[in-house]
Amino acid sequence: MLEPIAAVDDELIDALTKGVPAGAGRLRFGDIAGRGWSLLAGDLPLPAAVIRTDVMAANSRWMAEFLKASGVLIAPHGKTTMSPQLFHRQIADGAWAITVATMQQMMVCRRFGIDRVLMANQIVGRAATRAIIAELAADPDFEFYALADTVEGVTAVVAEARRSRLPRPVNLLLEAGMAGGRGGCRDVAQALAVARAIAAEAPWVALRGVEGFEGLAKGATAEDRTARVEQFLDHLCAIATACRDESLFAPGPVILTAGGSAYYDLVVERLPRAGITNALIVTRSGCYLTHDSCMYRTAFAEVMERSATARALPGGLAPALQVWAHVQSRPEPGRAILTLGKRDAGHDAGLPVPELWHRPGTEGSPQPLPGDHEMVEMNDQHAHLALPPQSPLRFGDMVGFGVSHPCTTFDKWQIIYLVDAAYRVTGAIRTFF
Amino acid sequence: MLEPIAAVDDELIDALTKGVPAGAGRLRFGDIAGRGWSLLAGDLPLPAAVIRTDVMAANSRWMAEFLKASGVLIAPHGKTTMSPQLFHRQIADGAWAITVATMQQMMVCRRFGIDRVLMANQIVGRAATRAIIAELAADPDFEFYALADTVEGVTAVVAEARRSRLPRPVNLLLEAGMAGGRGGCRDVAQALAVARAIAAEAPWVALRGVEGFEGLAKGATAEDRTARVEQFLDHLCAIATACRDESLFAPGPVILTAGGSAYYDLVVERLPRAGITNALIVTRSGCYLTHDSCMYRTAFAEVMERSATARALPGGLAPALQVWAHVQSRPEPGRAILTLGKRDAGHDAGLPVPELWHRPGTEGSPQPLPGDHEMVEMNDQHAHLALPPQSPLRFGDMVGFGVSHPCTTFDKWQIIYLVDAAYRVTGAIRTFF
Repeated sequence: MLEPIAAVDDELIDALTKGVPAGAGRLRFGDIAGRGWSLLAGDLPLPAAVIRTDVMAANSRWMAEFLKASGVLIAPHGKTTMSPQLFHRQIADGAWAITVATMQQMMVCRRFGIDRVLMANQIVGRAATRAIIAELAADPDFEFYALADTVEGVTAVVAEARRSRLPRPVNLLLEAGMAGGRGGCRDVAQALAVARAIAAEAPWVALRGVEGFEGLAKGATAEDRTARVEQFLDHLCAIATACRDESLFAPGPVILTAGGSAYYDLVVERLPRAGITNALIVTRSGCYLTHDSCMYRTAFAEVMERSATARALPGGLAPALQVWAHVQSRPEPGRAILTLGKRDAGHDAGLPVPELWHRPGTEGSPQPLPGDHEMVEMNDQHAHLALPPQSPLRFGDMVGFGVSHPCTTFDKWQIIYLVDAAYRVTGAIRTFF
Repeated sequence: MLEPIAAVDDELIDALTKGVPAGAGRLRFGDIAGRGWSLLAGDLPLPAAVIRTDVMAANSRWMAEFLKASGVLIAPHGKTTMSPQLFHRQIADGAWAITVATMQQMMVCRRFGIDRVLMANQIVGRAATRAIIAELAADPDFEFYALADTVEGVTAVVAEARRSRLPRPVNLLLEAGMAGGRGGCRDVAQALAVARAIAAEAPWVALRGVEGFEGLAKGATAEDRTARVEQFLDHLCAIATACRDESLFAPGPVILTAGGSAYYDLVVERLPRAGITNALIVTRSGCYLTHDSCMYRTAFAEVMERSATARALPGGLAPALQVWAHVQSRPEPGRAILTLGKRDAGHDAGLPVPELWHRPGTEGSPQPLPGDHEMVEMNDQHAHLALPPQSPLRFGDMVGFGVSHPCTTFDKWQIIYLVDAAYRVTGAIRTFF
């Protein structure tokens, strides 16, 4: 059962949190919605991050339709947003669980009443192992899954479960890996060795399925990457059928899960081919909700190219996350410096893209910036924009940037404003990074 | 007057904050020191960031000696750490002011009683401008400086000061810039136009000095960069003497300030040459306190090469900031995967450097990792370590990473542990990013 999000709403914030106007004094998070703030009117100190709620709602609808048409479940990766308010929205929109990467991320889910959590990582280290097992012991309704890819890892979890006399098994998913990739078993023999270790350690642990992450597949062309992803998904299926043939899965549904935000169409098409009759196919995209203006825009174009299911749906994903900054200097004819730095937007998968501009004090919607405006350098607290000498931008103007890779922009903010199509603030989300 | 840091000590934290053990429940920040936690004993969930206090103290002493020998002041850039506890330490060690980049950073200084703040940026945008002017109006003891490099920027500040009938001037420093660099006036004529605009708008604004940032100087070799930096510092001096010759500075000391963490030796040597008799020479390094294992290690070697003053001092700067992670998988003979990602350590100026390792449950100090261990890829939540097949590292081992560019590691954490040479937790700092 989901608890209300009251703990966030009741939190007091002030201008010590980046993005909050100093003039607001100390205010309840839940009262932001009623302040009547407007980005374009200059009510927010910039830089500020905003989510267009109209665009986010359309993205959520599109993904729900895609999943329905594909007959699969989603456990969106919570590490993207780390926002309990968005987790609740995703659950309300039909998500089966929330995926996390760490114990701290699991704790955030627990605090805000997420009852099913998939930790797409190994349980490792005394502090994290004890925390997870304590949480499992404290709440019998908490359904939790973590990964295993080595016998040593299984042994460590079993030792702690046994020590604390955990009254139910720790659910484990066998991690399938790809050569040159991240964690995970590279071949079926290795996977079976781990699976047998899990099965042998009942009732402390239970093998509940097979997991993989296909998103790191490398290749010179889109076709090469697609082939690598399909090959990897087939490897995941081969591990699953081998485990089934040896009856290593614990009773109940078998979870087959893969899928970042780039190849989920291949996942939903390929994993059912394992032919596991009691399988739950679970995808895990974290980025569909806000999408982006660069990395996942490209990935989505490839999804549309590959997937007839995706093409059959109306609409598509569009970027909902923006970061806004002021022009603070036009020091040379071809250059503007803006109040936006590495602290404010992701820069690991392409620099932010200047898309819109607005002059404070003027009416109307933000105007699109021509494509000849480009971010060329980013320091900790500054952006360098290359632009034509006749660019309209001058001191004090506001520029709205799309981002590449939402995860590394979300984690720059503890508060992100929710805005309507006119950039009026209708609320805010709190993140926990 | 500096207020006690009680507001940080009294804050309650729990495992929703990354790095805090779940088993600790909810605890006062100030009580961390008394918990008896040990990194090596596995009391902290990893990843965790730590500062070796012995190393930090030595760094602080070295810089104090260097400044004393050079006869200059320091206003350390607070954006590096954004930790009021470290700001207080820097003030106690003799810092003249704290430098910030944004209104939010200024507000953090104010909350924790820093009475002299240099904002090395333009004041821009209605929300930030009003916040700064309100702060100046509220506390006559608050000494504040900001930059100006355009007449439009001066006009905007004056308009707000006038509107709010600010009873004292907003102190402005003229920003000197370099071609192809960031903000700042490219030539003396442009600078004089801005300086005259400031002088003409008394009493709302006052010209208090000249500022520049030399750290973006580009060049193929160290010698090329040194030459560019010197040329830039001479440009800054030329602006200062031109302003003096026109009597554009307000009465009182004239602040000449430059200096990131790479070329401060050139700054302290070059700026006095302006020959301004009532000048305060102010450097602004933010990174000396923790130093790093890569980018600033290299820069410091160059400082030592260039500066006889630096060479004459005992010791030098050493890396005090580390991030620790667990080995979660050894999926291939030549690869380990660790619980450390882009969310946990800077990756914009070189990937973190694996330096130490420790096996939980064993006694003794962490052992150095051979140089044939190297981070080769970093995802949001994972590190890929290339290593020789005979590497001692296995599931559950702890690895300590040095970082490159402290600023982008500090901003990944709200809590960073203070540890002694045996990695026992002696306290913690809180950051405000």
